[in-house]
Amino acid sequence: MNDVIYETVVTTVNRDGKVHVAPMGVRYRPAAQGGDVILMPFKPSTTLDNIDATGHAVLNIVVDTRVFAGCVTGRRDWPTVAAERVAGVRLAAALSHIELAVAERTDDAQRPVLRMRRVHEAVHAPYVGFNRAQAAVIEGAVLVSRLGMLPADKVDREMAYLQIAIDKTAGPEEHEAWGWLADAVKRFRAGEAVR
Amino acid sequence: MNDVIYETVVTTVNRDGKVHVAPMGVRYRPAAQGGDVILMPFKPSTTLDNIDATGHAVLNIVVDTRVFAGCVTGRRDWPTVAAERVAGVRLAAALSHIELAVAERTDDAQRPVLRMRRVHEAVHAPYVGFNRAQAAVIEGAVLVSRLGMLPADKVDREMAYLQIAIDKTAGPEEHEAWGWLADAVKRFRAGEAVR
Repeated sequence: MNDVIYETVVTTVNRDGKVHVAPMGVRYRPAAQGGDVILMPFKPSTTLDNIDATGHAVLNIVVDTRVFAGCVTGRRDWPTVAAERVAGVRLAAALSHIELAVAERTDDAQRPVLRMRRVHEAVHAPYVGFNRAQAAVIEGAVLVSRLGMLPADKVDREMAYLQIAIDKTAGPEEHEAWGWLADAVKRFRAGEAVR
Repeated sequence: MNDVIYETVVTTVNRDGKVHVAPMGVRYRPAAQGGDVILMPFKPSTTLDNIDATGHAVLNIVVDTRVFAGCVTGRRDWPTVAAERVAGVRLAAALSHIELAVAERTDDAQRPVLRMRRVHEAVHAPYVGFNRAQAAVIEGAVLVSRLGMLPADKVDREMAYLQIAIDKTAGPEEHEAWGWLADAVKRFRAGEAVR
């Protein structure tokens, strides 16, 4: 059985302070064991390069799904706020954020395992419950990130299924995010760049 | 365009203090307008009867999806804690809860609209991010709640799709919740009661 994976957004900076925003599935160690956060960035990736360069990352808990849909459709420029205790930034949209420092790095050919300890954390806005449209956008973003690997009919079938939750439960943010994903599928099929 | 609908759990009590736990999709008025919560319980329902009898309800923000899967598969007995300011209870599993009082009741043949004002609210545990398996359980619970209305092949197809997120991202709670849903589909087809 896998550990639970949570879909978050990791913000990192390079040595010049240039910000990089990347959605990432993460794991949490039990709170009783310090609650370290396990990141497994792909090699190569800007996120991994930045963490290796600075020793830090910021974990953003985000429910504005435009960030997830945006990052897989070429929209990576999201408003940020300076972090409190590490060199870096958090997303302005974050409901909460956790500033992290590398505690242990286990190398791997594809996905090094970074155990990150908590340096600082803060809550910025309340979580108000599951929204089925937000979940549909997350699934759609996963599909769009894998367009080059998936059969077109599978993508169409799953997007049509996910559309139901969008129609029933979305607000303006989710509609905008979903529109970016649907547009990316069209662009991909027209041979255009998606990201 | 619909308002955003959030999947929550509403706890109510009858005049004798007997607790009723019911998953419910709710809407929030903007915070600047007081953040009233809009409930639309079906008529007839125990939730509606209890709110009409007491004038109160408690909104529970829950990410333990066993509560959602449990309530549609005959498991409605969840641990509760006394509410602070209204006659009633909140779920022990709630990340946060909001105690509500009826501000306005607009009757309807099927679903009266109850505008509920906030009497008290409290946060009990942090929200730590989207989990795709939790979203899959929510979707599975919606399917199971509609087994009598849906074609079997649609249920099978959608459960198979949702299973992917369970396999990839679930923890023990989500696996248990998913098992209840899968079992309910089998029981339904064997002609047994699901709830």
